[in-house]
Amino acid sequence: MYLIYQYKMNPFIIEDYIPNLSTDCVVFGYEKNELKVLLGKFKFGNGVWTLPGGYVKWTESIELAAIRTLKERTSLDNIYLDQFRVFGNENRILNSPYREIMIREFEKHFSQKEIEWKTNRFVCIGFYALVDINKVKVQNSEFDEYLEWRNIKEIPEMVYDHNEILAYALEALRQNLDRKLIAFNLLPETFTIQELHALYETVYDKKIVISNFQKRILDLKVLERLEKKFTGAQNKAPYLYRFIKS
Amino acid sequence: MYLIYQYKMNPFIIEDYIPNLSTDCVVFGYEKNELKVLLGKFKFGNGVWTLPGGYVKWTESIELAAIRTLKERTSLDNIYLDQFRVFGNENRILNSPYREIMIREFEKHFSQKEIEWKTNRFVCIGFYALVDINKVKVQNSEFDEYLEWRNIKEIPEMVYDHNEILAYALEALRQNLDRKLIAFNLLPETFTIQELHALYETVYDKKIVISNFQKRILDLKVLERLEKKFTGAQNKAPYLYRFIKS
Repeated sequence: MYLIYQYKMNPFIIEDYIPNLSTDCVVFGYEKNELKVLLGKFKFGNGVWTLPGGYVKWTESIELAAIRTLKERTSLDNIYLDQFRVFGNENRILNSPYREIMIREFEKHFSQKEIEWKTNRFVCIGFYALVDINKVKVQNSEFDEYLEWRNIKEIPEMVYDHNEILAYALEALRQNLDRKLIAFNLLPETFTIQELHALYETVYDKKIVISNFQKRILDLKVLERLEKKFTGAQNKAPYLYRFIKS
Repeated sequence: MYLIYQYKMNPFIIEDYIPNLSTDCVVFGYEKNELKVLLGKFKFGNGVWTLPGGYVKWTESIELAAIRTLKERTSLDNIYLDQFRVFGNENRILNSPYREIMIREFEKHFSQKEIEWKTNRFVCIGFYALVDINKVKVQNSEFDEYLEWRNIKEIPEMVYDHNEILAYALEALRQNLDRKLIAFNLLPETFTIQELHALYETVYDKKIVISNFQKRILDLKVLERLEKKFTGAQNKAPYLYRFIKS
């Protein structure tokens, strides 16, 4: 809480940040068979939708910049984070129809110097983050009117190339789900095989045969079997599992 | 040739480039069962070894910056290129013991302003490139004393964090070799299954059963079978294949 408070009180000081470099984060959460992404309704630019993003301080790594940005919005300290692609087209901001809209709004709030800084060319480092959605306490950053979890199938048009960034993030998540064994970051600490299976079907947006899935996952030897889940019907209750962190 | 000539004649104009942003390229080549990397012996800093790198012009994308950098060194226009990671630690240059060495050498050649620009913090976008080593005509850039192909197993200590960048590039190559079907970029246009198999064994640095390998590769349906390779012993000659570009 103190960190959040301090952040909101400090004005943005251009000189603290590396110019022309930004981070944007695609925060994935999972709930009731839905893959969700945390979007921000921007205070400026007629309330455009954005991915949570920020700039990189001279004194911090790009990873720490992303962690700071995410802590401001989710209140979480410990988030699974992975860089997946740099978006470095020379025109991604400068030729965007959103740029003029942003400038007009910024003129009501910021100095000319700050407006020029914020609407110049930016090379954007894309990160995706995986969170247990139940642990997130959403907090507006100074840029957000509000933040909202949106189903991956109901994503609105976003500013600049943020829809493209999201598409690449989803592709990276699908590629890495198995290879890096990261699905567990989207679930509570304990879960049944059926719940893990439903998550896989949701992320890949297709049916997966559960018997094959169960065998393949158990063969990886990364799950610790715990007690049975309490369902009232003890005999048929499925086992709970926990991911073994290596 | 004209492009190279023009490049060498033009002085470096700081204002043409985005500050604090660099690209470094790990150029992989393959020859006689050896995986090789193109390294530069730097003109400055007591001849430290470096990966071929450069800066990004305001008027070009990060990909084009990498392509330009590679064309300067390899004379190739059409290179398979993939970004694989951003190196954004705040101290990767500023706390490196190489920084002082570089500054001392730079003082003999460059203005104070240029030295400060070149030895400040840099966020580095790592690309790896795959080339047919026989097609490369190595050319020194203005920074290189000379360039040299080095076996991946005989890499010298390089400047800053370039050894770490190379290690990540090799990891990315191994992960993507199959998934993205990119091995063919390291070979001449036609090759035998035996030659492709040897390349896989070299990249992964382990034995791979050739019968399984052959079945798996052919099942992918991405190879076109051509005539037999001329070996003098026609009956036992292996077939040549070509990758079908989709």
